[in-house]
Amino acid sequence: MKPVKVGLCGLGTVGSGTFNVLQRNLNEISARASTPIELSHIGARRDNPACDTTNYQLSRDIFAVVDDPEVDIVVELIGGTTVAKELVEKAIANKKHVVTANKALIAEFGNELFAKAQEQGVCIAYEAAVAGGIPIIKAMREGLAANHIEWLAGIINGTGNFILTEMRDKGRDFADVLKEAQELGYAEADPTFDVEGIDAAHKLVILASLAFAMPLQYDKVFCEGISTVQPVDVKYAEELGYRIKHLGIARRRDEGIELRVHPTLIPHKRLIANVDGVMNSVLVQGEAVGPTLYYGAGAGAEPTASAVIADIVDVARAISSNAATVPALGFAPEYLQDHVILPIDAVETAYYLRMSALDKPGVMNQITQILSNAGASIEALIQKERESESQDHVDVALLTNSVLEADMKSAIEQIEALDSISGQVSRIRMEALG
Amino acid sequence: MKPVKVGLCGLGTVGSGTFNVLQRNLNEISARASTPIELSHIGARRDNPACDTTNYQLSRDIFAVVDDPEVDIVVELIGGTTVAKELVEKAIANKKHVVTANKALIAEFGNELFAKAQEQGVCIAYEAAVAGGIPIIKAMREGLAANHIEWLAGIINGTGNFILTEMRDKGRDFADVLKEAQELGYAEADPTFDVEGIDAAHKLVILASLAFAMPLQYDKVFCEGISTVQPVDVKYAEELGYRIKHLGIARRRDEGIELRVHPTLIPHKRLIANVDGVMNSVLVQGEAVGPTLYYGAGAGAEPTASAVIADIVDVARAISSNAATVPALGFAPEYLQDHVILPIDAVETAYYLRMSALDKPGVMNQITQILSNAGASIEALIQKERESESQDHVDVALLTNSVLEADMKSAIEQIEALDSISGQVSRIRMEALG
Ligand SMILES: NC(=O)c1ccc[n+]([C@@H]2O[C@H](COP(=O)([O-])OP(=O)(O)OC[C@H]3O[C@@H](n4cnc5c(N)ncnc54)[C@H](OP(=O)(O)O)[C@@H]3O)[C@@H](O)[C@H]2O)c1
Ligand SMILES: NC(=O)c1ccc[n+]([C@@H]2O[C@H](COP(=O)([O-])OP(=O)(O)OC[C@H]3O[C@@H](n4cnc5c(N)ncnc54)[C@H](OP(=O)(O)O)[C@@H]3O)[C@@H](O)[C@H]2O)c1
Repeated sequence: MKPVKVGLCGLGTVGSGTFNVLQRNLNEISARASTPIELSHIGARRDNPACDTTNYQLSRDIFAVVDDPEVDIVVELIGGTTVAKELVEKAIANKKHVVTANKALIAEFGNELFAKAQEQGVCIAYEAAVAGGIPIIKAMREGLAANHIEWLAGIINGTGNFILTEMRDKGRDFADVLKEAQELGYAEADPTFDVEGIDAAHKLVILASLAFAMPLQYDKVFCEGISTVQPVDVKYAEELGYRIKHLGIARRRDEGIELRVHPTLIPHKRLIANVDGVMNSVLVQGEAVGPTLYYGAGAGAEPTASAVIADIVDVARAISSNAATVPALGFAPEYLQDHVILPIDAVETAYYLRMSALDKPGVMNQITQILSNAGASIEALIQKERESESQDHVDVALLTNSVLEADMKSAIEQIEALDSISGQVSRIRMEALG
Repeated sequence: MKPVKVGLCGLGTVGSGTFNVLQRNLNEISARASTPIELSHIGARRDNPACDTTNYQLSRDIFAVVDDPEVDIVVELIGGTTVAKELVEKAIANKKHVVTANKALIAEFGNELFAKAQEQGVCIAYEAAVAGGIPIIKAMREGLAANHIEWLAGIINGTGNFILTEMRDKGRDFADVLKEAQELGYAEADPTFDVEGIDAAHKLVILASLAFAMPLQYDKVFCEGISTVQPVDVKYAEELGYRIKHLGIARRRDEGIELRVHPTLIPHKRLIANVDGVMNSVLVQGEAVGPTLYYGAGAGAEPTASAVIADIVDVARAISSNAATVPALGFAPEYLQDHVILPIDAVETAYYLRMSALDKPGVMNQITQILSNAGASIEALIQKERESESQDHVDVALLTNSVLEADMKSAIEQIEALDSISGQVSRIRMEALG
């Protein structure tokens, strides 16, 4: 049988992991693909000491891989949306299948790339782009094919989850843990992508398209990072029976789709609330199957390589049996349909609020009244004791039922305007996920 | 496009769920398959009030479905290994693809059925046979294709997990909870399949074959049920930081494969230890990806239907693009290879032991000595206080490190023979799953 030939572009973290796992397990992997797979060309502008490429054809110009007539599958692992985009476009133009781990590229340019690939009769596989080694794309696209998906929620950025876990376990503050994460190599020197939720937004928009049969709409995702989460909120959340997680949430409502990344209180009893450290997890609510959850490493050389290679195997199997692969977004393209993405003001969710309130009779009544006018009732409350005679304000932390974000915003403005409230109200969204 | 025609045999729990989900979501499902799917023939020896079959061709003789020249895919949902086997064989002989939820049939007769299917160029898909709605077969067979699998452990029987969860949460005893489970309809009137672990063994052997590239060897699974688990053990386990779960475990060792179903202490911090009630979960350790976990409903009409229909979509896609489906056990059949399945005496695991010991100096020394001779050291210990003057024996519960089962057996015999020990030693295996 003619082997399926793989060209690997990029020998960084994921590239070297892919190289090493392919080398180590090639027999088993070929047996799973039912067809021999061969790593036939590597493109890397410099060597990576983690990889012994002596016995491989290697080009310093990564575009040589794409132009190699022998190569069937181009694996793009350079990252970014400039050269990577050019590389993928060239691969498609040359009628080569593409495997990539590049969530930015897919989230931002997926629609046009998928269309080009379809024209050329090749596919773009991107299992590694969401939640690293967890086979979540396959689960959503194939495993849950019977289901009308209602919502999904994911811990899809390991760095953010590591920071929140440390903040909870050790009462540390954000900046302090971030520094450690950078030293450990989890977070980039510029950690914006991770902690401001951009990376999570890239992944969420992909999951949402798979769930709701719509083209990718990255610019519509609402995105709030974790840098404003205070240790005191982590503590009060815990007292109330909740954990704070940085979630990507996509929910189908009659009015449109909610698509949002933000810190979220979730009941500590939920399995996903117990996903700690750098691990990732996605919870999907299907209308037939109910909730299913997927957990694993969301990053790292070999976990991510695991997903890259799963794609290579799928594509190799399709090549060798002359078959079509599953459509890029899980549905026949003509079935995809734009949906209204709701602005954050139109989102409905429950809330955690924390404020510093004058410790005197009547104040709680004022707060309750304002919330009630906004349609929010108080579901749980912590009111701290004064620690000294001289202290006249105390912390109040409360949970509300689900209301419209716009209404909650105006309620918070009114609460902040009260004489009895000092400073700003901290607000974190809350989801029961049940 | 010519629709792919599905014949449904059996309208019981799963059959009716499959009928209803197919009816409700047929457009979305066809769009996912990129090909129209049609439910064209139903075989049911009597009506099911949950299904309105008025507009469908219905035969009282389920074999009429298999003999219908129009039908492309036969969905076997009658259960058992007699008529179901005949039905599947007939379907294969008629060159029809088969989708089934029947774990007993696959575990016990999968090898011969897969071979027959291969000869005829059709496939047998069985996602619903393991862990209900969780797409675990697909994850193992395709999503983790890059990995050399090291071990897996699963909560793969919902009834058993419900019973153990109730025992822990409410301190109830086994017989009492079993009665309730039967009243709730979770457990069969004859609960042996669930509580003795036979159902779990069926599923485990399937997962193990997918993990280790070997033919199914159902008769080699070691199987111990949960009927001997005492509330007191649940309580002591909890005090020691562990939960008792009924696990199916498959592990690759140099000497051979461990394949065992039994009550197991696991650290309560592990995610899988927090999978409660009727829910199922499988934890898989791949050498590239590390641990991944899959969670969801392991049974029920529509969750199981979700898996059945995922298979229908896969097969329909293959039919419409004239492609081969993934091999039944994930590997090209010629790659499958018998491995030695280790007898339980050759298994290596840690242990929880509970005994009633005379409360006097020197007794613990004797126990420690016997264990030490067997290669076991005591990792944690609870020694209860006497509750009255007249009581001369006290409960001792302890955890050991990992040793050979044969050695532990003989150590237990020696401990039971001590004058200072009254009655039998309770023994539950323990796994760190880390
Ligand atoms: N790291 C993870 O855990 C992870 C997880 C999931 C997905 N991903 C995605 O996987 C992709 C790769 O990430 P990574 O972590 O492996 O990145 P990385 O370690 O920075 O590796 C990128 C590699 O691409 C090369 N490269 C970059 N730009 C190039 C260019 N213009 N021409 C030639 N070579 C170029 C780099 O070469 P030099 O070394 O010479 O700069 C480097 O070898 C990204 O899309 C990322 O989002 C990563
Ligand atoms: N229930 C679950 O949650 C679940 C989950 C995963 C897998 N499964 C598997 O799915 C399969 C079906 O289970 P189920 O729970 O749906 O069983 P069920 O409710 O007992 O339904 C079985 C159906 O098959 C029919 N049937 C049985 N023997 C037949 C025969 N010889 N000829 C014609 N019809 C026959 C029965 O008809 P009558 O009503 O006339 O007897 C009934 O309609 C089994 O293999 C089971 O292990 C079940």
